[in-house]
Amino acid sequence: MAVLDSGFGGLTVARAIMEELPWESVLYFADSARGPYGSKSIETVRAYALECLDKVVTHEVKAIVIACNTASAAMLRDARERYDAPIIEVISPAVRQAAVATRNRRLGVICTEATKRSQAYEDAFAAAPDIDVLVEACPRFVEFVERGDVESSELRDVARTYLQPLKEASIDTLILGCTHYPLLSAVIADVMGPGVTLISSAAETARETALCLQQLGIERQNRQVPSRHTFLTTGSRRRFQRIGQRFLEAKMLQVHSA
Amino acid sequence: MAVLDSGFGGLTVARAIMEELPWESVLYFADSARGPYGSKSIETVRAYALECLDKVVTHEVKAIVIACNTASAAMLRDARERYDAPIIEVISPAVRQAAVATRNRRLGVICTEATKRSQAYEDAFAAAPDIDVLVEACPRFVEFVERGDVESSELRDVARTYLQPLKEASIDTLILGCTHYPLLSAVIADVMGPGVTLISSAAETARETALCLQQLGIERQNRQVPSRHTFLTTGSRRRFQRIGQRFLEAKMLQVHSA
Repeated sequence: MAVLDSGFGGLTVARAIMEELPWESVLYFADSARGPYGSKSIETVRAYALECLDKVVTHEVKAIVIACNTASAAMLRDARERYDAPIIEVISPAVRQAAVATRNRRLGVICTEATKRSQAYEDAFAAAPDIDVLVEACPRFVEFVERGDVESSELRDVARTYLQPLKEASIDTLILGCTHYPLLSAVIADVMGPGVTLISSAAETARETALCLQQLGIERQNRQVPSRHTFLTTGSRRRFQRIGQRFLEAKMLQVHSA
Repeated sequence: MAVLDSGFGGLTVARAIMEELPWESVLYFADSARGPYGSKSIETVRAYALECLDKVVTHEVKAIVIACNTASAAMLRDARERYDAPIIEVISPAVRQAAVATRNRRLGVICTEATKRSQAYEDAFAAAPDIDVLVEACPRFVEFVERGDVESSELRDVARTYLQPLKEASIDTLILGCTHYPLLSAVIADVMGPGVTLISSAAETARETALCLQQLGIERQNRQVPSRHTFLTTGSRRRFQRIGQRFLEAKMLQVHSA
Protein backbone atom coordinates (compact mmCIF):
# COMPACT_ATOMS: atom_id res chain seq x y z
CA MET A 1 0.00 0.00 0.00
CA ALA A 2 1.06 3.60 -0.48
CA VAL A 3 1.67 6.30 2.12
CA LEU A 4 1.87 9.91 0.92
CA ASP A 5 3.39 12.84 2.74
CA SER A 6 5.00 16.16 1.96
CA GLY A 7 8.17 14.95 3.68
CA PHE A 8 9.12 13.07 6.84
CA GLY A 9 6.09 13.51 9.09
CA GLY A 10 4.16 10.72 7.40
CA LEU A 11 6.89 8.29 8.45
CA THR A 12 5.29 8.29 11.92
CA VAL A 13 2.17 6.89 10.24
CA ALA A 14 4.14 4.54 7.96
CA ARG A 15 5.91 3.15 10.99
CA ALA A 16 2.65 2.48 12.82
CA ILE A 17 1.34 0.70 9.71
CA MET A 18 4.51 -1.42 9.46
CA GLU A 19 4.05 -2.42 13.10
CA GLU A 20 0.31 -3.13 12.77
CA LEU A 21 0.62 -4.96 9.44
CA PRO A 22 4.18 -6.33 9.33
CA TRP A 23 3.46 -8.50 6.29
CA GLU A 24 2.28 -5.61 4.09
CA SER A 25 4.77 -3.79 1.84
CA VAL A 26 4.69 -0.01 2.01
CA LEU A 27 5.49 2.41 -0.81
CA TYR A 28 6.27 5.72 0.89
CA PHE A 29 6.13 8.78 -1.34
CA ALA A 30 7.63 12.02 0.03
CA ASP A 31 7.22 15.28 -1.84
CA SER A 32 10.30 16.59 -0.02
CA ALA A 33 11.33 18.88 -2.88
CA ARG A 34 8.15 20.95 -2.46
CA GLY A 35 7.23 20.22 1.16
CA PRO A 36 6.48 21.04 3.85
CA TYR A 37 2.96 21.85 2.70
CA GLY A 38 1.71 23.56 5.87
CA SER A 39 2.42 27.15 4.85
CA LYS A 40 1.13 26.84 1.27
CA SER A 41 -2.35 27.60 -0.10
CA ILE A 42 -4.95 24.84 -0.15
CA GLU A 43 -5.07 25.05 -3.95
CA THR A 44 -1.30 24.60 -4.26
CA VAL A 45 -1.23 21.72 -1.78
CA ARG A 46 -4.07 20.02 -3.68
CA ALA A 47 -2.25 20.33 -7.00
CA TYR A 48 1.04 19.03 -5.55
CA ALA A 49 -0.50 16.14 -3.64
CA LEU A 50 -2.67 14.97 -6.56
CA GLU A 51 0.37 15.10 -8.84
CA CYS A 52 2.19 12.85 -6.37
CA LEU A 53 -0.72 10.41 -6.13
CA ASP A 54 -0.97 10.28 -9.93
CA LYS A 55 2.60 8.91 -9.81
CA VAL A 56 1.86 6.66 -6.84
CA VAL A 57 -1.02 4.87 -8.59
CA THR A 58 1.25 3.85 -11.47
CA HIS A 59 2.76 1.42 -8.92
CA GLU A 60 -0.43 -0.68 -8.51
CA VAL A 61 -1.13 0.09 -4.88
CA LYS A 62 -4.09 -1.53 -3.15
CA ALA A 63 -4.77 1.32 -0.71
CA ILE A 64 -3.56 4.90 -0.28
CA VAL A 65 -2.91 6.53 3.07
CA ILE A 66 -2.71 10.33 2.98
CA ALA A 67 -0.37 10.71 5.94
CA CYS A 68 -0.39 14.50 5.99
CA ASN A 69 -3.10 16.56 7.66
CA THR A 70 -2.57 19.51 5.34
CA ALA A 71 -2.87 17.39 2.20
CA SER A 72 -5.89 15.59 3.60
CA ALA A 73 -7.68 18.87 4.33
CA ALA A 74 -6.90 20.04 0.81
CA MET A 75 -7.60 17.06 -1.45
CA LEU A 76 -9.04 14.06 0.34
CA ARG A 77 -12.34 14.33 -1.50
CA ASP A 78 -10.67 14.74 -4.88
CA ALA A 79 -8.54 11.68 -4.19
CA ARG A 80 -11.59 9.60 -3.33
CA GLU A 81 -13.16 10.57 -6.62
CA ARG A 82 -9.99 10.26 -8.70
CA TYR A 83 -8.57 6.88 -7.71
CA ASP A 84 -9.99 3.39 -7.52
CA ALA A 85 -7.91 2.43 -4.47
CA PRO A 86 -9.50 3.08 -1.07
CA ILE A 87 -8.23 6.29 0.55
CA ILE A 88 -7.40 6.48 4.25
CA GLU A 89 -6.43 9.72 5.95
CA VAL A 90 -5.31 11.00 9.32
CA ILE A 91 -7.88 13.54 10.52
CA SER A 92 -10.93 11.33 11.15
CA PRO A 93 -8.97 8.65 13.05
CA ALA A 94 -7.53 11.28 15.42
CA VAL A 95 -10.93 12.89 15.93
CA ARG A 96 -12.61 9.56 16.72
CA GLN A 97 -9.97 8.78 19.31
CA ALA A 98 -10.02 12.27 20.85
CA ALA A 99 -13.82 12.37 21.12
CA VAL A 100 -13.67 9.23 23.24
CA ALA A 101 -10.64 10.38 25.28
CA THR A 102 -11.80 13.79 26.46
CA ARG A 103 -13.47 13.87 29.87
CA ASN A 104 -14.04 17.60 30.35
CA ARG A 105 -15.13 18.07 26.69
CA ARG A 106 -12.48 20.76 26.20
CA LEU A 107 -10.11 19.75 23.48
CA GLY A 108 -7.18 21.28 21.62
CA VAL A 109 -5.76 20.73 18.15
CA ILE A 110 -2.31 21.89 17.03
CA CYS A 111 -1.64 21.94 13.30
CA THR A 112 -0.17 23.86 10.37
CA GLU A 113 -1.55 27.17 9.18
CA ALA A 114 -3.17 25.63 6.08
CA THR A 115 -4.95 23.01 8.19
CA LYS A 116 -6.19 25.67 10.64
CA ARG A 117 -7.46 27.85 7.78
CA SER A 118 -9.31 24.90 6.27
CA GLN A 119 -11.20 24.38 9.58
CA ALA A 120 -11.05 20.66 8.80
CA TYR A 121 -10.89 19.77 12.51
CA GLU A 122 -13.82 21.98 13.50
CA ASP A 123 -15.84 20.29 10.73
CA ALA A 124 -14.80 16.83 11.88
CA PHE A 125 -16.21 17.56 15.37
CA ALA A 126 -19.64 18.56 13.99
CA ALA A 127 -21.28 15.46 15.43
CA ALA A 128 -20.07 16.26 18.96
CA PRO A 129 -21.45 19.77 19.52
CA ASP A 130 -20.84 19.46 23.29
CA ILE A 131 -17.06 19.40 22.75
CA ASP A 132 -15.27 22.79 22.72
CA VAL A 133 -12.54 22.62 20.10
CA LEU A 134 -9.67 25.11 20.17
CA VAL A 135 -7.32 25.02 17.18
CA GLU A 136 -3.86 26.60 17.26
CA ALA A 137 -1.43 26.76 14.35
CA CYS A 138 2.18 25.99 15.27
CA PRO A 139 3.94 26.96 12.04
CA ARG A 140 7.52 26.63 13.28
CA PHE A 141 7.21 23.09 14.72
CA VAL A 142 7.76 21.43 11.34
CA GLU A 143 11.04 23.24 10.72
CA PHE A 144 12.40 22.06 14.09
CA VAL A 145 11.49 18.45 13.31
CA GLU A 146 12.84 18.60 9.77
CA ARG A 147 16.21 19.82 11.03
CA GLY A 148 16.27 17.19 13.72
CA ASP A 149 15.77 19.46 16.71
CA VAL A 150 13.28 17.80 19.04
CA GLU A 151 14.50 19.09 22.41
CA SER A 152 16.44 22.40 22.29
CA SER A 153 15.61 25.23 24.64
CA GLU A 154 14.63 27.34 21.62
CA LEU A 155 12.06 24.70 20.68
CA ARG A 156 10.84 24.61 24.27
CA ASP A 157 10.35 28.40 24.27
CA VAL A 158 8.44 28.27 20.98
CA ALA A 159 6.29 25.43 22.31
CA ARG A 160 5.46 27.39 25.46
CA THR A 161 4.24 30.33 23.38
CA TYR A 162 2.18 28.20 20.98
CA LEU A 163 0.61 26.09 23.70
CA GLN A 164 -0.17 28.83 26.21
CA PRO A 165 -3.75 29.52 24.94
CA LEU A 166 -4.48 25.79 25.12
CA LYS A 167 -3.21 25.57 28.69
CA GLU A 168 -5.31 28.58 29.64
CA ALA A 169 -8.37 26.93 28.09
CA SER A 170 -7.91 23.93 30.43
CA ILE A 171 -8.13 21.35 27.67
CA ASP A 172 -7.69 17.73 28.77
CA THR A 173 -6.95 16.28 25.30
CA LEU A 174 -4.63 17.55 22.58
CA ILE A 175 -4.64 16.29 18.99
CA LEU A 176 -1.25 16.41 17.30
CA GLY A 177 -2.81 17.55 14.02
CA CYS A 178 0.32 17.28 11.91
CA THR A 179 2.20 14.05 11.35
CA HIS A 180 5.49 15.74 12.25
CA TYR A 181 4.40 16.50 15.78
CA PRO A 182 4.69 13.03 17.35
CA LEU A 183 8.45 13.60 17.22
CA LEU A 184 7.90 16.55 19.58
CA SER A 185 5.69 14.58 22.00
CA ALA A 186 8.19 14.82 24.86
CA VAL A 187 8.42 18.62 24.72
CA ILE A 188 4.68 19.07 24.12
CA ALA A 189 3.72 16.74 26.98
CA ASP A 190 6.17 18.55 29.24
CA VAL A 191 4.76 21.99 28.43
CA MET A 192 1.11 20.89 28.66
CA GLY A 193 1.72 19.12 31.96
CA PRO A 194 0.13 15.95 33.35
CA GLY A 195 -3.59 15.43 32.87
CA VAL A 196 -3.52 16.26 29.16
CA THR A 197 -3.79 13.28 26.81
CA LEU A 198 -1.86 13.65 23.56
CA ILE A 199 -3.53 12.06 20.53
CA SER A 200 -1.39 11.12 17.55
CA SER A 201 -3.20 9.86 14.51
CA ALA A 202 -0.46 7.35 13.63
CA ALA A 203 -1.66 4.34 15.62
CA GLU A 204 -5.35 4.99 14.95
CA THR A 205 -4.70 5.45 11.23
CA ALA A 206 -2.81 2.15 11.16
CA ARG A 207 -5.77 0.43 12.81
CA GLU A 208 -8.12 2.01 10.28
CA THR A 209 -5.85 0.83 7.46
CA ALA A 210 -5.93 -2.73 8.80
CA LEU A 211 -9.72 -2.61 9.09
CA CYS A 212 -10.05 -1.25 5.57
CA LEU A 213 -7.89 -4.02 4.04
CA GLN A 214 -9.82 -6.61 6.03
CA GLN A 215 -13.25 -5.29 5.05
CA LEU A 216 -12.29 -5.19 1.37
CA GLY A 217 -10.66 -8.62 1.62
CA ILE A 218 -7.37 -7.32 0.20
CA GLU A 219 -5.01 -8.23 3.04
CA ARG A 220 -1.87 -10.01 2.01
CA GLN A 221 -2.45 -13.75 2.11
CA ASN A 222 1.13 -14.96 1.89
CA ARG A 223 2.72 -13.82 5.13
CA GLN A 224 5.84 -15.99 4.89
CA VAL A 225 7.62 -13.84 2.32
CA PRO A 226 8.91 -10.74 4.12
CA SER A 227 7.42 -7.37 3.20
CA ARG A 228 9.49 -4.93 1.15
CA HIS A 229 9.23 -1.23 1.79
CA THR A 230 10.13 1.32 -0.85
CA PHE A 231 10.77 5.01 -0.28
CA LEU A 232 10.43 7.54 -3.08
CA THR A 233 11.30 11.19 -2.66
CA THR A 234 11.04 14.13 -5.01
CA GLY A 235 13.96 15.69 -3.12
CA SER A 236 17.46 14.66 -2.07
CA ARG A 237 17.77 10.92 -1.53
CA ARG A 238 20.68 11.33 0.89
CA ARG A 239 18.89 13.88 3.02
CA PHE A 240 15.77 11.69 3.10
CA GLN A 241 17.80 8.70 4.19
CA ARG A 242 19.62 10.65 6.88
CA ILE A 243 16.56 12.25 8.44
CA GLY A 244 14.25 9.31 7.72
CA GLN A 245 16.38 7.10 10.00
CA ARG A 246 15.28 9.23 12.92
CA PHE A 247 11.63 8.42 12.25
CA LEU A 248 12.00 4.74 11.47
CA GLU A 249 14.88 4.25 13.90
CA ALA A 250 17.08 1.30 13.09
CA LYS A 251 15.24 0.32 9.92
CA MET A 252 17.41 0.88 6.91
CA LEU A 253 15.74 2.96 4.24
CA GLN A 254 16.03 2.12 0.55
CA VAL A 255 15.39 5.53 -0.96
CA HIS A 256 14.81 6.18 -4.66
CA SER A 257 14.08 9.27 -6.67
CA ALA A 258 10.42 9.72 -7.57
CA MET B 1 -25.37 38.58 3.14
CA ALA B 2 -24.95 36.22 0.21
CA VAL B 3 -26.44 32.78 -0.37
CA LEU B 4 -24.93 30.61 -3.10
CA ASP B 5 -26.51 27.63 -4.79
CA SER B 6 -26.34 25.81 -8.09
CA GLY B 7 -30.04 26.57 -8.61
CA PHE B 8 -33.23 26.54 -6.59
CA GLY B 9 -32.44 24.23 -3.68
CA GLY B 10 -30.62 26.95 -1.75
CA LEU B 11 -33.85 28.94 -1.63
CA THR B 12 -34.98 26.63 1.19
CA VAL B 13 -31.98 27.93 3.16
CA ALA B 14 -32.46 31.54 1.99
CA ARG B 15 -36.05 31.39 3.15
CA ALA B 16 -35.08 30.13 6.59
CA ILE B 17 -32.53 32.96 6.86
CA MET B 18 -35.14 35.54 5.82
CA GLU B 19 -37.44 34.24 8.53
CA GLU B 20 -34.73 34.08 11.21
CA LEU B 21 -33.21 37.47 10.32
CA PRO B 22 -36.02 39.47 8.68
CA TRP B 23 -34.02 42.72 8.80
CA GLU B 24 -31.05 41.35 6.83
CA SER B 25 -30.91 41.72 3.05
CA VAL B 26 -30.05 38.61 1.09
CA LEU B 27 -28.20 38.42 -2.21
CA TYR B 28 -29.08 35.04 -3.69
CA PHE B 29 -26.78 33.78 -6.44
CA ALA B 30 -27.97 30.81 -8.52
CA ASP B 31 -25.66 29.14 -11.00
CA SER B 32 -28.74 27.84 -12.82
CA ALA B 33 -27.06 27.83 -16.23
CA ARG B 34 -24.56 25.19 -15.07
CA GLY B 35 -26.45 23.55 -12.18
CA PRO B 36 -27.49 21.23 -10.78
CA TYR B 37 -24.00 20.36 -9.51
CA GLY B 38 -24.79 16.95 -8.03
CA SER B 39 -23.77 14.82 -11.00
CA LYS B 40 -20.56 16.74 -11.81
CA SER B 41 -17.00 16.06 -10.67
CA ILE B 42 -15.76 17.68 -7.46
CA GLU B 43 -13.14 19.57 -9.46
CA THR B 44 -15.74 21.01 -11.82
CA VAL B 45 -18.11 21.94 -9.00
CA ARG B 46 -15.24 23.67 -7.18
CA ALA B 47 -14.29 25.71 -10.25
CA TYR B 48 -17.91 26.72 -10.92
CA ALA B 49 -18.75 27.61 -7.34
CA LEU B 50 -15.57 29.64 -6.77
CA GLU B 51 -16.22 31.52 -10.01
CA CYS B 52 -19.67 32.39 -8.68
CA LEU B 53 -18.33 33.51 -5.31
CA ASP B 54 -15.70 35.65 -7.02
CA LYS B 55 -18.66 37.53 -8.54
CA VAL B 56 -20.62 37.52 -5.29
CA VAL B 57 -17.84 39.21 -3.31
CA THR B 58 -17.82 42.18 -5.72
CA HIS B 59 -21.15 43.06 -4.04
CA GLU B 60 -19.65 43.75 -0.59
CA VAL B 61 -21.34 40.94 1.33
CA LYS B 62 -20.73 40.56 5.05
CA ALA B 63 -21.16 36.78 5.16
CA ILE B 64 -21.44 33.98 2.62
CA VAL B 65 -23.73 30.98 3.01
CA ILE B 66 -22.91 28.05 0.73
CA ALA B 67 -26.43 26.65 0.50
CA CYS B 68 -25.54 23.61 -1.56
CA ASN B 69 -24.18 20.39 -0.06
CA THR B 70 -22.34 19.44 -3.24
CA ALA B 71 -20.58 22.80 -3.49
CA SER B 72 -19.77 22.74 0.22
CA ALA B 73 -18.17 19.30 -0.04
CA ALA B 74 -16.14 20.49 -3.03
CA MET B 75 -14.88 23.95 -2.08
CA LEU B 76 -15.74 25.01 1.44
CA ARG B 77 -12.08 25.03 2.51
CA ASP B 78 -10.99 26.97 -0.54
CA ALA B 79 -13.69 29.55 0.12
CA ARG B 80 -12.56 30.01 3.71
CA GLU B 81 -9.05 30.67 2.50
CA ARG B 82 -10.04 32.83 -0.48
CA TYR B 83 -12.52 35.31 0.98
CA ASP B 84 -12.48 37.65 3.95
CA ALA B 85 -16.20 37.22 4.67
CA PRO B 86 -17.12 34.44 7.11
CA ILE B 87 -18.33 31.30 5.34
CA ILE B 88 -21.29 29.29 6.59
CA GLU B 89 -22.32 26.00 5.04
CA VAL B 90 -25.02 23.37 5.32
CA ILE B 91 -23.35 20.08 6.21
CA SER B 92 -22.12 20.75 9.76
CA PRO B 93 -25.42 22.30 10.93
CA ALA B 94 -27.36 19.25 9.75
CA VAL B 95 -24.87 16.87 11.35
CA ARG B 96 -24.99 18.68 14.70
CA GLN B 97 -28.76 18.51 14.74
CA ALA B 98 -28.90 14.86 13.63
CA ALA B 99 -26.33 13.72 16.20
CA VAL B 100 -28.58 15.08 18.94
CA ALA B 101 -31.81 13.78 17.36
CA THR B 102 -30.93 10.12 16.85
CA ARG B 103 -31.95 7.77 19.65
CA ASN B 104 -30.98 4.40 18.21
CA ARG B 105 -27.69 5.79 16.77
CA ARG B 106 -28.61 4.55 13.30
CA LEU B 107 -28.76 7.42 10.90
CA GLY B 108 -29.27 7.92 7.17
CA VAL B 109 -28.15 10.62 4.77
CA ILE B 110 -29.62 11.14 1.30
CA CYS B 111 -27.64 13.32 -1.10
CA THR B 112 -26.31 13.77 -4.62
CA GLU B 113 -23.75 11.44 -6.17
CA ALA B 114 -20.93 14.00 -5.84
CA THR B 115 -21.65 14.51 -2.13
CA LYS B 116 -21.73 10.74 -1.55
CA ARG B 117 -18.43 10.27 -3.40
CA SER B 118 -16.82 13.04 -1.33
CA GLN B 119 -17.75 11.17 1.90
CA ALA B 120 -18.25 14.60 3.47
CA TYR B 121 -21.01 13.29 5.76
CA GLU B 122 -19.03 10.27 6.96
CA ASP B 123 -16.17 12.67 7.80
CA ALA B 124 -18.50 15.04 9.64
CA PHE B 125 -19.59 12.19 11.94
CA ALA B 126 -15.99 11.33 12.93
CA ALA B 127 -16.50 12.62 16.46
CA ALA B 128 -19.50 10.33 17.04
CA PRO B 129 -18.05 6.88 16.29
CA ASP B 130 -21.02 5.20 17.99
CA ILE B 131 -23.39 6.44 15.27
CA ASP B 132 -23.85 4.19 12.22
CA VAL B 133 -24.11 6.42 9.17
CA LEU B 134 -25.61 5.08 5.94
CA VAL B 135 -25.36 7.36 2.92
CA GLU B 136 -27.52 6.88 -0.19
CA ALA B 137 -27.33 8.96 -3.36
CA CYS B 138 -30.68 9.92 -4.83
CA PRO B 139 -29.59 11.37 -8.17
CA ARG B 140 -33.05 11.79 -9.69
CA PHE B 141 -34.63 13.74 -6.80
CA VAL B 142 -33.20 17.07 -7.98
CA GLU B 143 -34.73 16.76 -11.45
CA PHE B 144 -38.19 16.16 -9.95
CA VAL B 145 -37.89 19.25 -7.76
CA GLU B 146 -36.50 21.40 -10.55
CA ARG B 147 -39.45 20.53 -12.79
CA GLY B 148 -41.89 21.16 -9.98
CA ASP B 149 -42.93 17.57 -9.37
CA VAL B 150 -43.07 17.00 -5.62
CA GLU B 151 -45.84 14.41 -5.42
CA SER B 152 -46.36 12.31 -8.57
CA SER B 153 -46.64 8.54 -8.40
CA GLU B 154 -43.46 8.31 -10.49
CA LEU B 155 -41.62 10.31 -7.80
CA ARG B 156 -43.12 8.09 -5.12
CA ASP B 157 -41.85 4.97 -6.90
CA VAL B 158 -38.37 6.44 -7.27
CA ALA B 159 -38.38 7.46 -3.59
CA ARG B 160 -39.37 3.95 -2.52
CA THR B 161 -36.42 2.47 -4.42
CA TYR B 162 -33.89 5.00 -3.13
CA LEU B 163 -35.05 4.81 0.48
CA GLN B 164 -35.50 1.03 0.75
CA PRO B 165 -31.94 0.33 2.07
CA LEU B 166 -32.41 3.04 4.72
CA LYS B 167 -35.71 1.54 5.84
CA GLU B 168 -34.12 -1.90 6.04
CA ALA B 169 -31.30 -0.45 8.16
CA SER B 170 -33.88 0.76 10.72
CA ILE B 171 -32.55 4.30 10.89
CA ASP B 172 -34.46 6.69 13.16
CA THR B 173 -33.07 9.94 11.69
CA LEU B 174 -32.63 10.98 8.07
CA ILE B 175 -30.57 13.97 6.92
CA LEU B 176 -31.86 15.61 3.75
CA GLY B 177 -28.31 16.16 2.48
CA CYS B 178 -29.25 18.29 -0.52
CA THR B 179 -31.00 21.62 -0.24
CA HIS B 180 -33.54 20.56 -2.88
CA TYR B 181 -34.89 17.73 -0.77
CA PRO B 182 -36.96 19.70 1.78
CA LEU B 183 -39.44 20.22 -1.08
CA LEU B 184 -39.87 16.43 -1.14
CA SER B 185 -40.36 16.13 2.64
CA ALA B 186 -43.95 14.95 2.35
CA VAL B 187 -43.12 12.05 0.02
CA ILE B 188 -39.94 11.13 1.90
CA ALA B 189 -41.69 11.17 5.30
CA ASP B 190 -44.48 9.08 3.85
CA VAL B 191 -42.12 6.44 2.45
CA MET B 192 -39.93 6.32 5.59
CA GLY B 193 -42.95 6.04 7.84
CA PRO B 194 -43.49 7.41 11.35
CA GLY B 195 -40.63 7.23 13.83
CA VAL B 196 -38.03 8.62 11.42
CA THR B 197 -37.02 12.26 12.06
CA LEU B 198 -36.19 14.22 8.90
CA ILE B 199 -33.39 16.76 9.33
CA SER B 200 -33.21 19.66 6.91
CA SER B 201 -30.20 21.91 7.22
CA ALA B 202 -32.21 25.06 6.37
CA ALA B 203 -33.38 26.07 9.85
CA GLU B 204 -30.15 25.04 11.56
CA THR B 205 -28.06 26.89 8.97
CA ALA B 206 -30.17 30.02 9.52
CA ARG B 207 -29.53 29.77 13.27
CA GLU B 208 -25.81 29.35 12.63
CA THR B 209 -25.87 32.39 10.34
CA ALA B 210 -27.56 34.47 13.05
CA LEU B 211 -25.00 33.32 15.61
CA CYS B 212 -22.13 34.10 13.27
CA LEU B 213 -23.32 37.67 12.61
CA GLN B 214 -23.88 38.18 16.32
CA GLN B 215 -20.46 36.84 17.34
CA LEU B 216 -18.73 39.04 14.77
CA GLY B 217 -20.88 42.04 15.72
CA ILE B 218 -22.00 42.56 12.13
CA GLU B 219 -25.76 42.28 12.53
CA ARG B 220 -27.78 45.02 10.91
CA GLN B 221 -28.33 47.81 13.42
CA ASN B 222 -31.03 49.76 11.60
CA ARG B 223 -34.01 47.44 11.63
CA GLN B 224 -36.61 50.06 10.65
CA VAL B 225 -35.69 50.18 6.97
CA PRO B 226 -37.04 47.01 5.35
CA SER B 227 -34.58 44.47 3.98
CA ARG B 228 -34.13 44.14 0.22
CA HIS B 229 -33.47 40.78 -1.33
CA THR B 230 -31.75 40.43 -4.69
CA PHE B 231 -31.70 37.31 -6.85
CA LEU B 232 -29.01 36.77 -9.46
CA THR B 233 -29.02 33.84 -11.84
CA THR B 234 -26.59 32.73 -14.51
CA GLY B 235 -29.54 31.14 -16.31
CA SER B 236 -32.97 32.22 -17.50
CA ARG B 237 -34.48 34.98 -15.35
CA ARG B 238 -38.04 34.00 -16.25
CA ARG B 239 -37.52 30.37 -15.39
CA PHE B 240 -35.87 31.31 -12.09
CA GLN B 241 -38.77 33.58 -11.20
CA ARG B 242 -41.35 30.97 -12.10
CA ILE B 243 -39.79 28.09 -10.17
CA GLY B 244 -38.39 30.30 -7.39
CA GLN B 245 -41.95 31.29 -6.39
CA ARG B 246 -42.55 27.70 -5.37
CA PHE B 247 -39.69 27.85 -2.86
CA LEU B 248 -40.35 31.31 -1.45
CA GLU B 249 -44.12 31.02 -1.82
CA ALA B 250 -45.90 34.34 -2.06
CA LYS B 251 -42.73 36.46 -1.93
CA MET B 252 -42.19 38.19 -5.24
CA LEU B 253 -38.73 37.64 -6.65
CA GLN B 254 -36.73 40.41 -8.28
CA VAL B 255 -34.43 38.40 -10.51
CA HIS B 256 -31.44 39.80 -12.39
CA SER B 257 -28.85 38.26 -14.66
CA ALA B 258 -25.54 37.52 -12.96
